[in-house]
Amino acid sequence: MVDEKLSQLEFTQLADDLAKLGRNFYRRGWALGTSGNFSAVLTRDPLRLAITATGVDKGALAASQVVQIDSNKKVVEGSLRPSDEAVVHLAVVRLCDAGSVLHTHSVWSTLLSDAYADQGGFWIEGYEMLKGLAQVRTHEHREWLPILENSQDLPALEREIETILRLHPNAHGFLLRRHGLYTWGHDLAQAKRHVEILEFLLEVLGRGRSWKT
Amino acid sequence: MVDEKLSQLEFTQLADDLAKLGRNFYRRGWALGTSGNFSAVLTRDPLRLAITATGVDKGALAASQVVQIDSNKKVVEGSLRPSDEAVVHLAVVRLCDAGSVLHTHSVWSTLLSDAYADQGGFWIEGYEMLKGLAQVRTHEHREWLPILENSQDLPALEREIETILRLHPNAHGFLLRRHGLYTWGHDLAQAKRHVEILEFLLEVLGRGRSWKT
Amino acid sequence: MVDEKLSQLEFTQLADDLAKLGRNFYRRGWALGTSGNFSAVLTRDPLRLAITATGVDKGALAASQVVQIDSNKKVVEGSLRPSDEAVVHLAVVRLCDAGSVLHTHSVWSTLLSDAYADQGGFWIEGYEMLKGLAQVRTHEHREWLPILENSQDLPALEREIETILRLHPNAHGFLLRRHGLYTWGHDLAQAKRHVEILEFLLEVLGRGRSWKT
Amino acid sequence: MVDEKLSQLEFTQLADDLAKLGRNFYRRGWALGTSGNFSAVLTRDPLRLAITATGVDKGALAASQVVQIDSNKKVVEGSLRPSDEAVVHLAVVRLCDAGSVLHTHSVWSTLLSDAYADQGGFWIEGYEMLKGLAQVRTHEHREWLPILENSQDLPALEREIETILRLHPNAHGFLLRRHGLYTWGHDLAQAKRHVEILEFLLEVLGRGRSWKT
Repeated sequence: MVDEKLSQLEFTQLADDLAKLGRNFYRRGWALGTSGNFSAVLTRDPLRLAITATGVDKGALAASQVVQIDSNKKVVEGSLRPSDEAVVHLAVVRLCDAGSVLHTHSVWSTLLSDAYADQGGFWIEGYEMLKGLAQVRTHEHREWLPILENSQDLPALEREIETILRLHPNAHGFLLRRHGLYTWGHDLAQAKRHVEILEFLLEVLGRGRSWKT
Repeated sequence: MVDEKLSQLEFTQLADDLAKLGRNFYRRGWALGTSGNFSAVLTRDPLRLAITATGVDKGALAASQVVQIDSNKKVVEGSLRPSDEAVVHLAVVRLCDAGSVLHTHSVWSTLLSDAYADQGGFWIEGYEMLKGLAQVRTHEHREWLPILENSQDLPALEREIETILRLHPNAHGFLLRRHGLYTWGHDLAQAKRHVEILEFLLEVLGRGRSWKT
Repeated sequence: MVDEKLSQLEFTQLADDLAKLGRNFYRRGWALGTSGNFSAVLTRDPLRLAITATGVDKGALAASQVVQIDSNKKVVEGSLRPSDEAVVHLAVVRLCDAGSVLHTHSVWSTLLSDAYADQGGFWIEGYEMLKGLAQVRTHEHREWLPILENSQDLPALEREIETILRLHPNAHGFLLRRHGLYTWGHDLAQAKRHVEILEFLLEVLGRGRSWKT
Repeated sequence: MVDEKLSQLEFTQLADDLAKLGRNFYRRGWALGTSGNFSAVLTRDPLRLAITATGVDKGALAASQVVQIDSNKKVVEGSLRPSDEAVVHLAVVRLCDAGSVLHTHSVWSTLLSDAYADQGGFWIEGYEMLKGLAQVRTHEHREWLPILENSQDLPALEREIETILRLHPNAHGFLLRRHGLYTWGHDLAQAKRHVEILEFLLEVLGRGRSWKT
């Protein structure tokens, strides 16, 4: 009983944090037009994931628009339907042992995920900002950012993601072509940091391309 | 009498929502210099449209700067003059059965409406963001965004718009050359989503052009 | 006595409005690093001009950082020193019968004032946004934006401005090379609108140039 | 005793000011992903430096995340660990007699620090904005912005900085390659002004390069 109450408080807090993050990312232009979805693990066993509901305006995201689901995507708390991409979130939680998964749609991720789609990803290398990624200790790090073809067949996409993440076990994120970025972390703060770092580096690469034609 | 009071409350609420949206779009740079105008249907029969007044600063837009007009553009509530482009709003409401019409002036819509004017519009295709447009179920969607020549002859422009919307009954918006974007939705929330999605995609196309010279 | 009190209230209100505008323009990146200065006429006869003090952070601009000067740049109210460019403000007030003069430093005005310096200015033509400039009734308007060489010799600069404004009596603003934009209006609201319109159009022209190389 | 209390109050005030500045720079995109660190001198003899703690989110920077260190980087107030780059801050305080040192990671500083790395820096010349740098009286000023190779060997980096600052005693800042900007001032307000001026000019140079291909 005490545990349940504690967990309820934790869910309220996480839902608040996810709502605040959503409003922040909306202001930056990373979650316009109801795009983007954000989740954080509440308990591991059994798995309980707090995740944003489908189709909500991230500029006015409220804690009441975050629901709680189990490992089968069944809603166990909250009255709204979870994001359709909840299956991707659950896959990343399972495969990467992530405590939080964040998905943004930015202009630069959209452009670069298309420009480098043929080679299946691209290297980001030599930037100090890379040191903000978990386990990275030096700017001399080489980060491979995989790109997957976009798909509306979510179970097929989930299998693709599983394959890619096994191939690149040290990846901190991946792009869906003409769609956006997925990244994660052991908790919400780390996942947020990863979004900011990867979006920053995508902007650096994207703007730099205007110089070399 | 009860209905009238209810409608008055609804008008106050819609005016508040339009004012909030105007200040949001101003901050994004989509409604600078008193540009932009925004409307939402209050009742269908008889038609009552809440619409922003002409010449007001969208950065400080107040509910009191929204007026209520009928299908002949006559003000039935409020003391200010409605936007000159009210006739375009009324045409879109009539032709598309829209519940809200939003018009923004952004840098990217201005540039692209000029660059593609000769071909009368352009395709937006293959982006996940397109799924946020009403009735679109897959990123494999192909959206034609028509471009009309800009004009100060508003009745003539209204006829042009009627022609274009009959030619492209599935369009979610159109551009006026070197002027801006019109889009709409069944309600204000959907129309707002359409603005954000189309402006996002215009920025993607606009920035991508800097890479290909 | 009554007049004096009224005028004092008006000064307090104008100082508040100028401070709010300064913080707004700072957020947009048009007045970074203490750059930019803003003024509005309080009385015509004798001339009293409310103007921002020199060297203040526009991101935290307070009404107490606005001083009142006469036509000789003498401070008649307030303890701070007025902007060094007060002489330019006074010249524009005198020559254009302006009620408010606003000076911003933006990235695009800096770039374009340099790119077109050799031809002494450039045309802005065919944009709907131009209709927001005073007396402009159609987007088919052609606006000449003059460029002057930057100078630290303010009396010489004042004479240059006088020459340029006599040559282009319909101009709504001018650029100082590698420095920024001056524009004005019959009151503060109109001058603010002119800043937003001209800065918007400079961004359109500036971004468009990246496409044509 | 009185002095100690005074100093405590001053530390609280400085910590508040540094937190406010950090949140401002985060909003501008200059301190994403926990990047950036900021310091200000509290007393000279003995040296006490208020500096941001390592790994904190600048978007939610609180005064409690600022610590006080001595000239050996030992924490004398506060429970968090200071930024790893505190040694660079201490070196700049010592070599430039600075009262505040600010370090930002922007997109344009990252790009330009890489583009001009081979020549060890670049000139910024002829811009009015340069007048906002301490001791600069005219836009005809020529500012050399040195670039150092990035390094994780902080003592070696400190020696490099010492060499560069002796070679360029009038420099107002320097770049670390693919890393970011360091600048300083006699107090926090001046250092903040220097960040805004240099970041503005880097954006001008960066955007201008897209025109010349």
